[in-house]
Amino acid sequence: MTSRPLVQATPGDIAAAARRVMARCDELARVSAAPGRIERVYLSPEHARVNRLAAEWMRELGMRTWQDAAGNQVGRLGAAEKPALLLGSHLDTVLDAGRYDGIVGVLMALEVVRLLRVPTGDGWTCGLPFALEVVAFSDEEGTRFGKALLGSSAVAGSWDDAWWALQDADGVSLRQAFLEFGLDPGRIDEAARRPGEVVGYLEAHIEQGPELDRAAEPLAVVSSIASARRFQVVVEGEARHAGGTPYDMRHDALLGASEAALAVERLCSAEHHVIGTVGRFEAFPGAVNVIPGEVRFSLDLRGEFDGERDRVWLALARDLDEIMGRRGLRWSAREVHSAPAVFCAPLLQDVVAAGIRSTLPPRSEAPPVIFSRAGHDGMALGAITDVGMLFLRNPGGISHHPDEGVSTGDVAHGIRALAESVLQIAAEPR
Amino acid sequence: MTSRPLVQATPGDIAAAARRVMARCDELARVSAAPGRIERVYLSPEHARVNRLAAEWMRELGMRTWQDAAGNQVGRLGAAEKPALLLGSHLDTVLDAGRYDGIVGVLMALEVVRLLRVPTGDGWTCGLPFALEVVAFSDEEGTRFGKALLGSSAVAGSWDDAWWALQDADGVSLRQAFLEFGLDPGRIDEAARRPGEVVGYLEAHIEQGPELDRAAEPLAVVSSIASARRFQVVVEGEARHAGGTPYDMRHDALLGASEAALAVERLCSAEHHVIGTVGRFEAFPGAVNVIPGEVRFSLDLRGEFDGERDRVWLALARDLDEIMGRRGLRWSAREVHSAPAVFCAPLLQDVVAAGIRSTLPPRSEAPPVIFSRAGHDGMALGAITDVGMLFLRNPGGISHHPDEGVSTGDVAHGIRALAESVLQIAAEPR
Repeated sequence: MTSRPLVQATPGDIAAAARRVMARCDELARVSAAPGRIERVYLSPEHARVNRLAAEWMRELGMRTWQDAAGNQVGRLGAAEKPALLLGSHLDTVLDAGRYDGIVGVLMALEVVRLLRVPTGDGWTCGLPFALEVVAFSDEEGTRFGKALLGSSAVAGSWDDAWWALQDADGVSLRQAFLEFGLDPGRIDEAARRPGEVVGYLEAHIEQGPELDRAAEPLAVVSSIASARRFQVVVEGEARHAGGTPYDMRHDALLGASEAALAVERLCSAEHHVIGTVGRFEAFPGAVNVIPGEVRFSLDLRGEFDGERDRVWLALARDLDEIMGRRGLRWSAREVHSAPAVFCAPLLQDVVAAGIRSTLPPRSEAPPVIFSRAGHDGMALGAITDVGMLFLRNPGGISHHPDEGVSTGDVAHGIRALAESVLQIAAEPR
Repeated sequence: MTSRPLVQATPGDIAAAARRVMARCDELARVSAAPGRIERVYLSPEHARVNRLAAEWMRELGMRTWQDAAGNQVGRLGAAEKPALLLGSHLDTVLDAGRYDGIVGVLMALEVVRLLRVPTGDGWTCGLPFALEVVAFSDEEGTRFGKALLGSSAVAGSWDDAWWALQDADGVSLRQAFLEFGLDPGRIDEAARRPGEVVGYLEAHIEQGPELDRAAEPLAVVSSIASARRFQVVVEGEARHAGGTPYDMRHDALLGASEAALAVERLCSAEHHVIGTVGRFEAFPGAVNVIPGEVRFSLDLRGEFDGERDRVWLALARDLDEIMGRRGLRWSAREVHSAPAVFCAPLLQDVVAAGIRSTLPPRSEAPPVIFSRAGHDGMALGAITDVGMLFLRNPGGISHHPDEGVSTGDVAHGIRALAESVLQIAAEPR
């Protein structure tokens, strides 16, 4: 790690790069399945369109491009025989999303390539001891099939054949969606990278919370990505006439599920590093004059440490037994996602910190270090390589919402920090 | 009111009538829009088919028949110049319905006509100081257009022209549905009865609750039909990222709405005669990893007395202010339905009680008197005539569900009681 900044770009170059990132975020925001909102899910026509745009931008930089077997869009600069440092994030979104979550990290990676590339006789190379690859992951959010990190899991070689049967809200299976998108399910293994081919993975992402905004800091080193478990919970009671059934004969699934949602809040609040959310909640039959006989809800549990998170789940299961027993209801839960906490590699935390210190004006104090409660593609890639992450300040901490934001100035700081991180890795003895 | 039973039918006649009612309930249950389930909504092809069946059965009894301007099927026995006692109930259903709610009352009314008719030279008459009409109402449940009691409102002359614009789930307006069914919206007023044409309205219906089953009583006099108010409640918070947003920055609409649903239960349970139900409950955006920013839920409030019901609503509004204020949420409610309690006429309560006392073996003690928490066609007809109702025991109290039931023996008791009630009215000095 050198203490002298390695990036030679002028403030004007960096500012132009940041403006280009912001303009491209706006351009990609218009690629949406829903008028007036942003909605771009895995294996949709919008997914194909943003991949084509990203591929064009990669080729403008002299990169070789391909869409991999899981629909991730990849661009590479550097000799074929060299291992690659992966830079990237994802282009898919939640429903009614903001325009920066994931997207800004892909576009910043392209600007880093632009800053670091060096001309050859007839094109460009990256001039580093490794190749540079920008990966635009195809599914990080899990919006369409419930299972998150599909794109990065394929790259990490941890694809599970059980996922082929997952269905979207219209009953389309993941296998069928692959075929309709023009991908061959039988070739999914070709997306997998072997550890020796990859030097590491670096990602810039907006913070999905308010800590940097509260601390008045533009950038942070990420120490770890929270562990997450997701459950699909079903509460069953009896659908009966709303007028004729007195309270002592009711087995109202909605009231049991309401108590359950409040129990999640109570139990998680009691632990410092755990947070739980009931995001999807459906009552059946859903008629004004019928007592709900069934409720299905999702539970998303995250913690900095797996143990705390699992302790909350066990306490919740005990509470659900009590609530549902008292109300004459049955409950069951199916775990649909589980990921242990992923710790960012110490070396990559150090190079990201060096990158942040190189931003102008140079700073001597250590940059903030925070853990990410939100999941990221690095959770999957941690299985095959070292992961490092850089967070950008998000005014108000709003995320997964049209109001999420990041300033052009902070993106400029982030581009410089990310480029510097790459050069710091290149300067390491190996 | 005479204390000597007036109905001369033998137990064998009554038993045969009850068996016929049960067999016809099964026959009508097969007229459904959904295979394997019962679904028969207003102005559907199934509505036309059950009207044709009912008309055939009416004509077999010597009745003159017509389908009125609102699609109600009517049969009449007796001189044209006489006012009519209306007997009936409805033939439409909720979705995935049972086979007795409404239907059994129409079929029992036909058996009462069979028991009471007297031969003329070339046909039948009813031999009473009034004509007998059986009305099979076309829409009591409100399943298709949201608004209940459309059929009986037309007969009561309280049709509201604003209803023509109501739409079903496919966007078909009520006006369009009339035309497609072969009815002329411009003639809706022809369905209305003038008060002088009607002696009263008597209806038999299964209890939509468990009180008779618990009391081991086959029949009850209905004292009143509950007052009902329905609200559409909206809770607004902020949709944010489930991982990144700490609890102190959340404005989770689902948690506020969950507390609201539990408050409805708590406040209604504290009042003896009020019951509230949250039946429809939708969370938006409804994604696993997004905090719900909005919840919309329905509230159905019923009470024996308008005042108690309204007191619960006011207390709930105060609770909602507190809950939503504490959580940084906004709430609003729109009233979509309101009906005052309808009290059964004292004379008709007395004749129904006399009818119940006439069942075999004759009973000396007063029959149970209960109020109906569920709505019935009598709520609309109360505007033009006296209303009386007879409830039949419903094993387990299950209603609006395929498992709802009534026994052949209780239907036999009910037929005798209803026929006796008619003769008691005829025996009244007028």
